[in-house]
Amino acid sequence: MIPLLMFTLALTGGANEDRAAIQHILDDQAAAWNKGDLPGFMKGYLESDDLTFFSGNNKTKGWKATLERYQKTYQADGKEMGKLGFSELSIEPLGKDHMLVRGRFTLQLKASSPTGIFTLVMRKTEGGWRIIHDHTSQ
Amino acid sequence: MIPLLMFTLALTGGANEDRAAIQHILDDQAAAWNKGDLPGFMKGYLESDDLTFFSGNNKTKGWKATLERYQKTYQADGKEMGKLGFSELSIEPLGKDHMLVRGRFTLQLKASSPTGIFTLVMRKTEGGWRIIHDHTSQ
Repeated sequence: MIPLLMFTLALTGGANEDRAAIQHILDDQAAAWNKGDLPGFMKGYLESDDLTFFSGNNKTKGWKATLERYQKTYQADGKEMGKLGFSELSIEPLGKDHMLVRGRFTLQLKASSPTGIFTLVMRKTEGGWRIIHDHTSQ
Repeated sequence: MIPLLMFTLALTGGANEDRAAIQHILDDQAAAWNKGDLPGFMKGYLESDDLTFFSGNNKTKGWKATLERYQKTYQADGKEMGKLGFSELSIEPLGKDHMLVRGRFTLQLKASSPTGIFTLVMRKTEGGWRIIHDHTSQ
């Protein structure tokens, strides 16, 4: 039983470390957003043409197009970024190299507080965990 | 090189078989829907309290609650199920035992054709591939 227990603990330890790493990335994303730093916010996403971003009924493909979508939606004339927060987070391993992250975002704007839910699929890369797919709706 | 090539082919073959199995599940789901058979449609989902279903700004947890949500949304008085079709499908392995499925659904109703996009995370179980998380928006 001891070797099995140790193996189980090692697995659990790994998952907990991975969860902490992902929590850290999400915290960094919110901090970057709240400084108005969209390229910093985008560090959580895989810098690849394969990245997909689904929002409402719209699909965006690729890291650059996703950044441009954020710029257009939140930094164009008359737009504001507001204060971003994440809540109701669930971070669940999908095998060794992927994670399913579910949660809620809330944006505090001057006159309203839009909120919605999101699904992130994250992949462990050499540079750390990165979002490979984001589906957001409200 | 030959053993590596064979190994690569074996891996690719496995992924292709898994993709075909998932395509089959989605086809069965659409066929069940189009017969008005919601429990049949629900066979694609993991029958577990851990199943999560995100739609718009709403989260539903558990297989039974998800079935009930479908019944309320599509089989209550004055509702119709219409004809369901899937398109723009992408089926991508996340390691050995999980798949990321992205696509679009279209529902042909009497007076309108609502369409939206979805993200499915599927898990390989002893009974076959099952959806463990569904995020849909339109």
